[in-house]
Amino acid sequence: MFWESLLNARAHRLQPSGIQEMMVYASRPGAISFAAGQPSEDLYPIEEITHGFEEAMKDTSVLAYPYTEGDSMLRQWISNWMVEEGLASSVPGSERILLTTGSQEGLNIISQLFLKDGDVVVVENPSYPEAMLTFGKEGVRFVTVSMDEEGPVVSELEAALAKEKVAFFYTIPTFQNPSGHSTSLARKKEILSLLKKYNVVLVEDEPYRQLWFDEKPAKTYFSLAKEEPVLYLGSFSKIIAPGLRCGWMVLPPIIMEKAVQLRLTFELGVSALLQRMIFYVVSRRNFEAHLSHLRHEYRERRDAMAEAISKHLAPLGFSFPTPKGGFFFWGSRDGLNGTDFARFAAKNFGVALIPGEIFFALPQKGQNFVRFSFAKVDREETNKGMERLAKAFREFC
Amino acid sequence: MFWESLLNARAHRLQPSGIQEMMVYASRPGAISFAAGQPSEDLYPIEEITHGFEEAMKDTSVLAYPYTEGDSMLRQWISNWMVEEGLASSVPGSERILLTTGSQEGLNIISQLFLKDGDVVVVENPSYPEAMLTFGKEGVRFVTVSMDEEGPVVSELEAALAKEKVAFFYTIPTFQNPSGHSTSLARKKEILSLLKKYNVVLVEDEPYRQLWFDEKPAKTYFSLAKEEPVLYLGSFSKIIAPGLRCGWMVLPPIIMEKAVQLRLTFELGVSALLQRMIFYVVSRRNFEAHLSHLRHEYRERRDAMAEAISKHLAPLGFSFPTPKGGFFFWGSRDGLNGTDFARFAAKNFGVALIPGEIFFALPQKGQNFVRFSFAKVDREETNKGMERLAKAFREFC
Repeated sequence: MFWESLLNARAHRLQPSGIQEMMVYASRPGAISFAAGQPSEDLYPIEEITHGFEEAMKDTSVLAYPYTEGDSMLRQWISNWMVEEGLASSVPGSERILLTTGSQEGLNIISQLFLKDGDVVVVENPSYPEAMLTFGKEGVRFVTVSMDEEGPVVSELEAALAKEKVAFFYTIPTFQNPSGHSTSLARKKEILSLLKKYNVVLVEDEPYRQLWFDEKPAKTYFSLAKEEPVLYLGSFSKIIAPGLRCGWMVLPPIIMEKAVQLRLTFELGVSALLQRMIFYVVSRRNFEAHLSHLRHEYRERRDAMAEAISKHLAPLGFSFPTPKGGFFFWGSRDGLNGTDFARFAAKNFGVALIPGEIFFALPQKGQNFVRFSFAKVDREETNKGMERLAKAFREFC
Repeated sequence: MFWESLLNARAHRLQPSGIQEMMVYASRPGAISFAAGQPSEDLYPIEEITHGFEEAMKDTSVLAYPYTEGDSMLRQWISNWMVEEGLASSVPGSERILLTTGSQEGLNIISQLFLKDGDVVVVENPSYPEAMLTFGKEGVRFVTVSMDEEGPVVSELEAALAKEKVAFFYTIPTFQNPSGHSTSLARKKEILSLLKKYNVVLVEDEPYRQLWFDEKPAKTYFSLAKEEPVLYLGSFSKIIAPGLRCGWMVLPPIIMEKAVQLRLTFELGVSALLQRMIFYVVSRRNFEAHLSHLRHEYRERRDAMAEAISKHLAPLGFSFPTPKGGFFFWGSRDGLNGTDFARFAAKNFGVALIPGEIFFALPQKGQNFVRFSFAKVDREETNKGMERLAKAFREFC
């Protein structure tokens, strides 16, 4: 009681992560995990990471207190790569690039600079739960916009912007987590003109962009924007390894300055050793080949899961569209309680998945949805897991 | 103007770091740096770090998303080591240990769980500027307690606690930054009974504790406390390498739970690769020998700086007590404007030092103080730097 009485409003607003709960089940011996958005361990570029460590250690200044902005070699590389890779229409300049420990840190920095108790944040319905925990801890109210296959529904977004003073619109435009949808070019242009009309910031979070299976995704909001305020977040977690904790943001100068001051109070700076290791991984000649290899491997896993779903779950009334990139199948079944089913399947059948409910900002939504990640499972495991899930479902009903 | 208008009160309260400004001067070619609390690069245990990387990479799960609490092997090691090293009177248990990226992150986590706009935080006068930036961004008001050679002055602390509702008392009890003072055992006991009387939390920050030159420091508050609420912060930055970004906190269960939920929204988790590397460094048989070596080397540098000060600066009226551990000489000269002098010496004589002013929570204090770090400079550089400073001072006056 003593300690609890000392906590502030933010601390009282904090909630446990629904994904973390499922991760505990997923780590049990013998469990098959369709749970987290973890890349597959066998696809980490181990040799390049080891080479990166050896190269980075030749300059022992990487073991000193880091620059708060991040390693200048990696920032410079990102600035150029963003143009080559089609993420930016012109070189943003390394001075606008803040290295993060991943998109999650970027979202927190944005939250802590922009949000205050009572603010309104617009999010997609469904959206990434950890982003909503991050915004939510600052005391915001969520307004949601539905997704269709082209992206966020424009009429709903306009209704929200017309009605409310909105702090920002948070979107995952490419292979969205969890829906798998990508926002089309036409939709992005419509949304950008709305942002201009209402003078609202867009936060563009793109951890899955490089993992396309059929064709390159539509241009980024960031590259399409002229005067429209867009904050861009990229990540190396899905394409190198999440344990190296490295991503980046592109920020306008005044926000960059404030973000650096904020980061200093958070942690002084992020390990330059890891950032320099990433630099040596991405600047090697075979990085493009590594990305192609990832796309190939994850495409195979996607195909295997699509097959296993149609074999085992579709006959039971589950419906899952096939994603064109990223890590996730997102689907539903009429009358399903996804949260109860996920717990039941994890406890009794050793298969971990994520219930749909936690991806919705507003309670009582998405109960009949579930999310499967195919990233960490091979064809055999996928088939076995789906077989177990079908059994679990029959027993659960 | 558009972006500025979006920032919240926290963002407006953020300030540039005075230490960072001096670091820019310190990094100029030919400059001699007495500025930052950076360990010496030649004292990093490079071989052990490399060995740690090789060992850690044998388990590629260190490249996956990390546990939010931190690596369990390192947490277990810290829990045991705290007893062996005399930091704790009994094993705290790894479940109470949160790995951080260093004390700075610990201070921010505490701030974000406990503080709100208008709260009062008691700090030592002088104290660590980045801690004050961290607390200050949440909108707190500072009440300060003077330091003497035994530690914080008890009558001043009691007056503060009696008058104000205090969120916590922040102290660096061992080789304090910047004063170099260590709080005596008797003083700690007095302060603990005050905490009990007023039911106030103590935040104990100990980055320099292992760097003692003459005798082991007095027992920690944490080990002395029975019911008194103490939050303990330790760090590997000064004794291994700051670029590995690793420290820890010991927290009561309810605060641990909230800290983990908060950390999740900050960054999901901290790189397990770095933490596991630290584990392999600290659990090697030669770690105690490494600490002895550091103490020996830093003692030599302390001695060299004491000699150079008495040769070059004492005749000019500067007075610097000799520290018994840590990294810093802290001293003053009547009539000096330390901030102007530090800029003048850095710009014109290529010597970086930290002006005293920034270590004081309340403005207009400590102007005649300056801080020198001896950690990164050898005997020759120290002598050359002090010679330059004496010249700078003659020209400055």
